Amino acid sequence: MLKEYFEDCKVGDRVVTPGRTITETDLVLFAAFSSDWNAIHTDREFAAQSPFGQRIAHGLLGLVTGFCLLSRGGWFHFWPASLVCITRLDKIRFLAPVFIGDTIRLDAEIVEMTRMREGNGLITSRMQVRNQRNEMVIAGRIQLQAGCRPADGCSDQGRQP
Amino acid sequence: MLKEYFEDCKVGDRVVTPGRTITETDLVLFAAFSSDWNAIHTDREFAAQSPFGQRIAHGLLGLVTGFCLLSRGGWFHFWPASLVCITRLDKIRFLAPVFIGDTIRLDAEIVEMTRMREGNGLITSRMQVRNQRNEMVIAGRIQLQAGCRPADGCSDQGRQP
Amino acid sequence: MLKEYFEDCKVGDRVVTPGRTITETDLVLFAAFSSDWNAIHTDREFAAQSPFGQRIAHGLLGLVTGFCLLSRGGWFHFWPASLVCITRLDKIRFLAPVFIGDTIRLDAEIVEMTRMREGNGLITSRMQVRNQRNEMVIAGRIQLQAGCRPADGCSDQGRQP
Amino acid sequence: MLKEYFEDCKVGDRVVTPGRTITETDLVLFAAFSSDWNAIHTDREFAAQSPFGQRIAHGLLGLVTGFCLLSRGGWFHFWPASLVCITRLDKIRFLAPVFIGDTIRLDAEIVEMTRMREGNGLITSRMQVRNQRNEMVIAGRIQLQAGCRPADGCSDQGRQP
Amino acid sequence: MLKEYFEDCKVGDRVVTPGRTITETDLVLFAAFSSDWNAIHTDREFAAQSPFGQRIAHGLLGLVTGFCLLSRGGWFHFWPASLVCITRLDKIRFLAPVFIGDTIRLDAEIVEMTRMREGNGLITSRMQVRNQRNEMVIAGRIQLQAGCRPADGCSDQGRQP
Amino acid sequence: MLKEYFEDCKVGDRVVTPGRTITETDLVLFAAFSSDWNAIHTDREFAAQSPFGQRIAHGLLGLVTGFCLLSRGGWFHFWPASLVCITRLDKIRFLAPVFIGDTIRLDAEIVEMTRMREGNGLITSRMQVRNQRNEMVIAGRIQLQAGCRPADGCSDQGRQP
Repeated sequence: MLKEYFEDCKVGDRVVTPGRTITETDLVLFAAFSSDWNAIHTDREFAAQSPFGQRIAHGLLGLVTGFCLLSRGGWFHFWPASLVCITRLDKIRFLAPVFIGDTIRLDAEIVEMTRMREGNGLITSRMQVRNQRNEMVIAGRIQLQAGCRPADGCSDQGRQP
Repeated sequence: MLKEYFEDCKVGDRVVTPGRTITETDLVLFAAFSSDWNAIHTDREFAAQSPFGQRIAHGLLGLVTGFCLLSRGGWFHFWPASLVCITRLDKIRFLAPVFIGDTIRLDAEIVEMTRMREGNGLITSRMQVRNQRNEMVIAGRIQLQAGCRPADGCSDQGRQP
Repeated sequence: MLKEYFEDCKVGDRVVTPGRTITETDLVLFAAFSSDWNAIHTDREFAAQSPFGQRIAHGLLGLVTGFCLLSRGGWFHFWPASLVCITRLDKIRFLAPVFIGDTIRLDAEIVEMTRMREGNGLITSRMQVRNQRNEMVIAGRIQLQAGCRPADGCSDQGRQP
Repeated sequence: MLKEYFEDCKVGDRVVTPGRTITETDLVLFAAFSSDWNAIHTDREFAAQSPFGQRIAHGLLGLVTGFCLLSRGGWFHFWPASLVCITRLDKIRFLAPVFIGDTIRLDAEIVEMTRMREGNGLITSRMQVRNQRNEMVIAGRIQLQAGCRPADGCSDQGRQP
Repeated sequence: MLKEYFEDCKVGDRVVTPGRTITETDLVLFAAFSSDWNAIHTDREFAAQSPFGQRIAHGLLGLVTGFCLLSRGGWFHFWPASLVCITRLDKIRFLAPVFIGDTIRLDAEIVEMTRMREGNGLITSRMQVRNQRNEMVIAGRIQLQAGCRPADGCSDQGRQP
Repeated sequence: MLKEYFEDCKVGDRVVTPGRTITETDLVLFAAFSSDWNAIHTDREFAAQSPFGQRIAHGLLGLVTGFCLLSRGGWFHFWPASLVCITRLDKIRFLAPVFIGDTIRLDAEIVEMTRMREGNGLITSRMQVRNQRNEMVIAGRIQLQAGCRPADGCSDQGRQP
C-alpha cells in the first residue's frame, strides 16, 4: 500500500530490499564523484598488499547505495510520500568491508515516530546493510521529516508525487 | 606537512577546504548512482510548488561531496597516510538545504584520538559543511582507524601511498 | 500491493508515475553513452538556427527515461516480480520534442495478457510519456514475458526479489 | 560519400558497423541513467540462480547502444545530414539476451522512403543487432524524418553540420 | 570515402567537424574523471572573482573533446582504419579559455607522412580547435601510427573495423 | 608545505604520486566522454586479434589520468595555488600501451621557470607516467602560468583557494 502521510507509518514497519552487486564500476564512479581516490579503493597493487588483500568500497559508497536500496520497492511503500527531507544520521557503524562483487541488501525498520508542531513528524528508522553472506556491513539510524495528513482545507505542498 | 602515522596527528589539527559548486549535474549523477530520484531532487515542477521553491540536493550528496572536500588539500595533510578505513559517523545533522548553484566548503577539526591495541588508533573529527553564505548545512562527526608508527622491524602494510 | 506472478496482473491495471525533469546533463550523458552526438542534441549554436530553436533530447532518451519511470512506484506494483525480460516494442511514435527543462511522466496501462505454455505469460502495456503541459511526447506498446504462479512443488527461479 | 539530403539515400543502402563490447560498466551506467536496477541486470547472486545463469543487459540498453553504432562510420554516410528527428520504431523484437562481454554490431538497411509535402521525407530502415556469434539479438524498424534538397532560394535550416 | 590504409591518406587532406557545446556537465564529468577539481573549474564563487570572471573548462578537457570531434564524420574518413595508436603530441598551445556554453569545432589537416619499416607509417596532423566566434582556443600537432596496405598474402591484423 | 605563489616553487621540485588502476570502467567512460569508441579500445573481439592482444586505453586517457594524479597529494604542494591556467604541452610521447588493470603513477619535476611581466610566471614540468612495472608509458612537458607574490597593496585575484 502506498503511504501518503506520517500517519500511514507505524513503528515496526519493515522492509528487506532486493540486492545490488557492488561493482568495480561503482568504485570508480564513486571515487570520481566524491574525489576520494585513496589507494585502498582505486589501486589494485597497493590493495593487494594491504590487510584487506584487495580493493574495498568506500564506506560512504556502501552507505549511499545501501540506504537508497529503498527505491527498489518504491520509497513510499516504506516512508510516506509526504517526505520532506533527511534530518539526521546517528550511530552509523561500518562493521565490515564491502568488496567488488559483493551483493548488498537493506533491512530497514521504523523504530521511532515523533509528531512535531506545524503539521510535520519525525520518523526514525534502523538501517542494516547486509552482504550476500548475511553479514552486517553497515548499521545505524536515519531520521526523516514528513508531513502529517492535512486537516480539512489545509494546503498540502509537501506531498511528493 | 604530510602525515604518515597516527602519531603525526593531534587534537586541534584543523583544515578549511576550497569550495565546490553543487550543480544540476551533481544532482542528476547522484540520483542515478543512488537510485534516489525523489521528486524534490529531480522534478522542477514539483519542487517549484514545494516549501523549498526549487530542487534541493540529496542530504547524502551534501555529506559525500562535503566530507570528501578533504581531497582538495591532499587527504594526508589532515589525516595520516596510514588511514585504514572509516569506522563511524555520529550525530550527523542536516541543518539547511543545499540548492543548485550553492558552493560548499568543509571545516574539519580533529577532536578526539584513541590509541588501540595492535598498532592502530581511532581519530574522530568534527565536520562542518558550510555554504557560500557561511551557513552550516551539515555537521557531525566522523571516526577513522589509522595505523600507528611501526616499532622497529614491524611490518607496515596499512600505510597508503 | 506487490504483484508476484502473471496472475496478479489484469488488463486495465494502470499507473501514472511521478515526473522527472530532463536536464542538459541527461542530454550529455545520453550522447556519451549512446555515441549519438548529432548537432541537434549537442550544439547550441546549430540548434538555435534549427526549426526547433533549441537543442532537443534524443528520441531514445525520452523512451528510456520515460518508460523506466515505472521504477518510481516500484516496478512490481505494476508488473509482476516474476518478470523475465522485454520481448517487444510496437508502434512507438515520437510525437513531440522533449526540450531541456521539460518534465515527463509516464501513463502506463496493461492492455493485453496472453498465457504461454511452460509457465510463462506475455503482458502488453500501452505506454504514454507526457510532458508538464500534458502533451503526449511518446506513445507505444511494450510486451514483457513474466512467470506464472508455480504449481505445487514447481521451481520458481524466475521471480525477482 | 557524405549524404546531404533525402535524395542522396536510396532503398537498399546498407551498412554493417564495427563492434562494441557490452561491459559490466555499461550495465551499471544504464541502470543508473534509466533507474532500472532490476535484479536480473544488477544482482549477481540472483542472476546466477535465474534461467539465464548470469546478469543480462537491459533490452533497451541493447537497443540504444546497438542502433547508435551508426555513429561509428559517421551517421551521415548512411542517413542524410538533413536528418530532422526520429519518428517511429516498429516491430522491435528482443530475440536473445546480451551478456556482459558480448560484442554487438549493427546491420542496417534502408527499406522504404516516402516523400512528404513541405520538403521532407521519411526514411525507414531495417535494423539488426548481432552478437559476436552472429546471432540476431534485436531486430526491428526505425523511421526518421529528413529534409529534401532545397529548391533554389529555399532556406535550409534543417541540415546538420 | 573510407580510408583503409596509410596509402589512402595524403598531405593536405583536411576536415572541419561539426560542433559540440561545452556544458557545465562536461566540466563536472571531467573534474570527476580526472580528479582535477581546481576552483577555477568548479567553484562559481571563486571563478567570479578571478580574471576570467567565470568558470573555465580544463585545458585537457578542450584537448580531448576537441581532438575527438573527428568521430563526428567517422574517424576513418580522415585517418585510415589501419590506425594503430597515438604516438606523439607536439607544440600544443592553449590559446584562449573555453567557457561553459561555448561551442567548439575541430579543423584538422594532414601535414606530414613518413613511411616506416615493417609495414607502418606515421601521420602527423595539424589540429586547431575553434570556438563559435572562430577564435582558435587550442592548436598543435598529433602524430599517429597506421598500417600500410599489406602486400599479397600478408596478414592484416591492425586494420580497425 | 603549501605553495602560494610562483616564488614558492623552484627548479628541481619533484613529486611521485600514488597509483591509480586503469579499469575497464575508465575505458568506457573515456570512450563515452570523448566519443572515441575505436575498436582497439572498446571491442574485445577485435582487440584480441590485434598485435596488442587485448583492448588498450586511449592515449589521451593515460595523459589525463596520469597528469592529474597530482591531485593526490594536493595540487598546491607541487604547483602554486596562484595557478592561472595550462599554457603548453610539448614533446608528449606515448611510449607503451596501458592495459586494463595496469596501475599508473606520475613522476613530475619542475624543470624551468620564467618570470613574465605583469606579475605572472611560467612553470615547466617534466611529466613521466609509469606503470606497475616501472615502465614509462607517457612522457613529456607541461607548462603552466601562475601568479607571482603580489607587491604590497596589489590585488591578488588569481590565487586559488
